[in-house]
Amino acid sequence: MHMPGLPPPIIRLISALRRLPGVGPRSAERMALDLVQSPAENASELADAIREARNRTLLCSNCGSLTEADPCAFCTDERRDPSLICVVEQPVDVLSIERSGSYRGRFHVLGGRISPLDGIGPEDLKIPQLEQRLTRDSVKEVILAMGTDVEGEATCHYLGKRLARTGLKVSRIAHGLPVGAGLEFADELTLSRALEGRSEFTP
Amino acid sequence: MHMPGLPPPIIRLISALRRLPGVGPRSAERMALDLVQSPAENASELADAIREARNRTLLCSNCGSLTEADPCAFCTDERRDPSLICVVEQPVDVLSIERSGSYRGRFHVLGGRISPLDGIGPEDLKIPQLEQRLTRDSVKEVILAMGTDVEGEATCHYLGKRLARTGLKVSRIAHGLPVGAGLEFADELTLSRALEGRSEFTP
Repeated sequence: MHMPGLPPPIIRLISALRRLPGVGPRSAERMALDLVQSPAENASELADAIREARNRTLLCSNCGSLTEADPCAFCTDERRDPSLICVVEQPVDVLSIERSGSYRGRFHVLGGRISPLDGIGPEDLKIPQLEQRLTRDSVKEVILAMGTDVEGEATCHYLGKRLARTGLKVSRIAHGLPVGAGLEFADELTLSRALEGRSEFTP
Repeated sequence: MHMPGLPPPIIRLISALRRLPGVGPRSAERMALDLVQSPAENASELADAIREARNRTLLCSNCGSLTEADPCAFCTDERRDPSLICVVEQPVDVLSIERSGSYRGRFHVLGGRISPLDGIGPEDLKIPQLEQRLTRDSVKEVILAMGTDVEGEATCHYLGKRLARTGLKVSRIAHGLPVGAGLEFADELTLSRALEGRSEFTP
């Protein structure tokens, strides 16, 4: 990285910031210059917060969610329906579903998705742990909530087939028109999924 | 901030990341989850880099650039023309000009720009320090390189008037069509500036 006129400690900070997701060279530079010019407390608060978060969180040994205590709050919350497990790819997906406010079951985080190009196969995902839970806990339904890209679809299909052997109800979250969007903004695949997934309408 | 299901150390990290420029709630969340899931070295490297950069850099007492040593490398570089001073708003602007590779004079960083709405007047900028340099060093030309927004223009005009008294040559960087862009993408103001600033063309 050629950075004329920048002191080496700032260049090292820019390199470290660049590793964060979604941070390009220009935004790393803006962040670094902001950090060294903002009050010293801000910088040390951020440095402490990074260390703390890294040292004090782990993945729940039961469901794979990020947590401070093991097992996590989802797995120990008696008010959440243990007979319902929503399977997602990443810990961040748990947050998205929680924000929707419309799910009161448990979670299972696979820790990735099947991606032959990246050398990730089913054996790299937490599928055995899921199967253990299905037999140990009295699970009635597994909801597959993978992404709709190629890898997400592949993971969803693989898991759907594998879980069919259990005889449990396996469902998949709906694909269709995003709420608030007109038809003219939806791509053909989304519209065809929306048509396939149509349900009876009683106004 | 309502963050159902997130461990408190991660919520604190998200809050600290949110203070960085250009980081919204979603990108702070992505960064935080990435940091706690990436190798521990990455997180501690970033935390160290933040502390180091904050503790080991300061503003040059002469020109206001970010530097590890005071005075900075720009002010002590004998190969840079001391009779030419380019005045900019922020330390980051120095980098932009250095990257252009077409300036070999010295710099002066004002540390902001005149902005009545934010309560920033000329007395909050490093203008006396600039004037001292003009009399102390044998400066021949001052180049004003402020931004082209309202506050940048105001700062440029104020400074231009104030420096006129010194009798030195005061110039301003050109405004016009960005290189590589067609006329159809330029707004009217830019085009009118480009016309005003036209120069003789000898092919």
